[in-house]
Amino acid sequence: MSIRENLISQAGAAKQAARKLAKAASGDKNKALNIIADKLIDRQDEILKVNQEDMEKGKENGLSRALLDRLKLTESRIEGMAQGLREVAAQEDPIGEVPHMWKRPNGLQIGKIRVPLGVIGIIYEARPNVTVDVAGLCLKSGNSVILRGGSNAFNSNQILTNIIQDGLREAGLPEESVQLIGTTDRKAVDILFTLNDYLDVLIPRGGAGLIQKVVNESKVPVIETGVGNCHVYVNKDADLTKAKKIVFNAKYSRPAVCNAAESLLVDAEIAEKFLPEMAGIFKEKDVELRGCEKTRKIVPQIKEADEEDYAAEYLDYIMSVKVVENYDEAVEHIYNYGTKHSEAIVTENYTTARKFLDDIDAAAVYVNASTRFTDGGQFGLGAETGISTQKLHARGPMGLKELTTTKYIIMGDGQIRE
Amino acid sequence: MSIRENLISQAGAAKQAARKLAKAASGDKNKALNIIADKLIDRQDEILKVNQEDMEKGKENGLSRALLDRLKLTESRIEGMAQGLREVAAQEDPIGEVPHMWKRPNGLQIGKIRVPLGVIGIIYEARPNVTVDVAGLCLKSGNSVILRGGSNAFNSNQILTNIIQDGLREAGLPEESVQLIGTTDRKAVDILFTLNDYLDVLIPRGGAGLIQKVVNESKVPVIETGVGNCHVYVNKDADLTKAKKIVFNAKYSRPAVCNAAESLLVDAEIAEKFLPEMAGIFKEKDVELRGCEKTRKIVPQIKEADEEDYAAEYLDYIMSVKVVENYDEAVEHIYNYGTKHSEAIVTENYTTARKFLDDIDAAAVYVNASTRFTDGGQFGLGAETGISTQKLHARGPMGLKELTTTKYIIMGDGQIRE
Repeated sequence: MSIRENLISQAGAAKQAARKLAKAASGDKNKALNIIADKLIDRQDEILKVNQEDMEKGKENGLSRALLDRLKLTESRIEGMAQGLREVAAQEDPIGEVPHMWKRPNGLQIGKIRVPLGVIGIIYEARPNVTVDVAGLCLKSGNSVILRGGSNAFNSNQILTNIIQDGLREAGLPEESVQLIGTTDRKAVDILFTLNDYLDVLIPRGGAGLIQKVVNESKVPVIETGVGNCHVYVNKDADLTKAKKIVFNAKYSRPAVCNAAESLLVDAEIAEKFLPEMAGIFKEKDVELRGCEKTRKIVPQIKEADEEDYAAEYLDYIMSVKVVENYDEAVEHIYNYGTKHSEAIVTENYTTARKFLDDIDAAAVYVNASTRFTDGGQFGLGAETGISTQKLHARGPMGLKELTTTKYIIMGDGQIRE
Repeated sequence: MSIRENLISQAGAAKQAARKLAKAASGDKNKALNIIADKLIDRQDEILKVNQEDMEKGKENGLSRALLDRLKLTESRIEGMAQGLREVAAQEDPIGEVPHMWKRPNGLQIGKIRVPLGVIGIIYEARPNVTVDVAGLCLKSGNSVILRGGSNAFNSNQILTNIIQDGLREAGLPEESVQLIGTTDRKAVDILFTLNDYLDVLIPRGGAGLIQKVVNESKVPVIETGVGNCHVYVNKDADLTKAKKIVFNAKYSRPAVCNAAESLLVDAEIAEKFLPEMAGIFKEKDVELRGCEKTRKIVPQIKEADEEDYAAEYLDYIMSVKVVENYDEAVEHIYNYGTKHSEAIVTENYTTARKFLDDIDAAAVYVNASTRFTDGGQFGLGAETGISTQKLHARGPMGLKELTTTKYIIMGDGQIRE
């Protein structure tokens, strides 16, 4: 069979499985999740051995240390995946929830009931734990999933998928509910984009390049995730002790993720007091700052920032800095350069704080907290399938509910329309 | 200016207006809606005169009687538009609603707040009342809108838009919130598809051809509306009196709309009793039936139905008929031929009814009621912008809430992530 035929056959099986899974009882889905968690632990030697082979190939292929680290599985990472599945099992089942039901004057009873989307495609990069996390969320929300992981993790993903399918079978659920694309050929992704008769949504998880490719080329509806050019704005009324902690955390705690801050805005009124201290903290940790002219008058040792810097998602130990005249200039800057991901203000002024929450159009708007909290787990939604940066369907961290849709159910006793 | 430059200038103005409108007080939006309603009545002679010119051009251009009827405005239709605006004004403002807010163990207070989408594009066909309906819904939900109506209604749409803009201005809201594309050139639509930096969503309202074009070609996210190959399934346990009324209403009350039924499924066990009576009712009203072999054994005078008939959205006084062996065959037929719009079962059997509500994947699933109820007004949602047949974002009739998105607001007192 050609790649296309193979994929259509997988997608067709996923669609059939989705019909069964949509009606599966919570108990059966939870049973499957817990069985899979047990199996991951039972078979960890096998998983580690296969992963070790991927690691060796990765080294041969010259993968960077950072990528090798993302690829690597350990006992504790496997324990983490199993624990994640158990937590998903413990969460409430979103399927079958009727958030609203009402009666019309003609006696029709109308309700909105939560149902699965159907078949979800996930395209992701190095980390094999995504295979298990995403499969668990899709299973719990009653969706089939077609997985396309990074080619370097192919064998690791394959054994994890096998274990998941074993668990599904044991729990009496269709094993085609979770399938990995059986080739690392890049053509498979392009074919996936055309399978809109089979897939209900495609979610890319990874770098900006991958996401843009999926958004531009897919005929399957896409939920856009990821790119974050996030700002922390230190307002003139900020508590500067809080501001230093928040700015440092938003940049330094994990610079390579989408909710890390890339840009620091500081009100002119406090810039002379705040910037030298902040620059000192960053210098100690080797974080590079790039500033506007006014910034460099205050901390002359740093590089100049240009337009590109203000638009950049560095994902690195680099941060752009701009001194703004006032609140309005800060909001305008965020409007012009932000990617509507996560934006924070540091201020003690009540009116300014409320205004910022209103004025900023982003998935997550913060007052006096680090942008790094934009995460399903941190928000208390449980595991997440990614962070949506679009406005339709889902915005911000996506938990189980975001993998569902609703349908109207209407119960009558013979009503007709006049 | 070229068409493209003109459109970009309109879209840019819409985007600026959207920022102001997003923060407009409910009171001001309602004031604008009521002023516009008054103006429509005050200026109705002027509106009717312009519409008369469109009608005359339409006749010259050989528009069908049905299309001319959709184009025509009358005193009572204008009164209807004004009344619609007043009803939208009376509805609760969706903007600013916080459906959930919670506190995390670290003290962070996290909420989801409802905000406008931004700029909405609507592409529609003949009826000028859509101009007013849609402008009202977008205004109330805090969105700017760019309207692209049918070329035959251009002058009618223009005067209605002028009146709307006058009302906005009087209420102190930006008049660029509602704009009509100032040309009937078809190129304008293709250009609209590329304005994803300005438009947040595009909603096509009209025939299947228009909708498919928008879905296939637009780079702006689309909400798909419309196409409905809806079924009524008369189960063996149906009350046949209810069944006759429901089937007749679902087909005959307004055949040219998407929630009209196109196909009738009848359990074999009751077909000999039910079909002759049903066929008699339809014959009296000149509704053409096209049936399967088993149907034609019972009512031999009707035409044969082929595969295409079962897939067709006739939008006419035609209905396909199929005798099914049992419930499962009915559900399979709907799965294979349905468009996931509105599907109905007629049955008195409790377990069969519950099963149907579960088994059918469609925007609206009915027990013992006509599919014709799939409508924002009939559901009690107020006016509607269309009926979504997709699964992401909105499904079924779209009211005010469906024209919004949410953002997370997070209030802290210095929290950083470990």
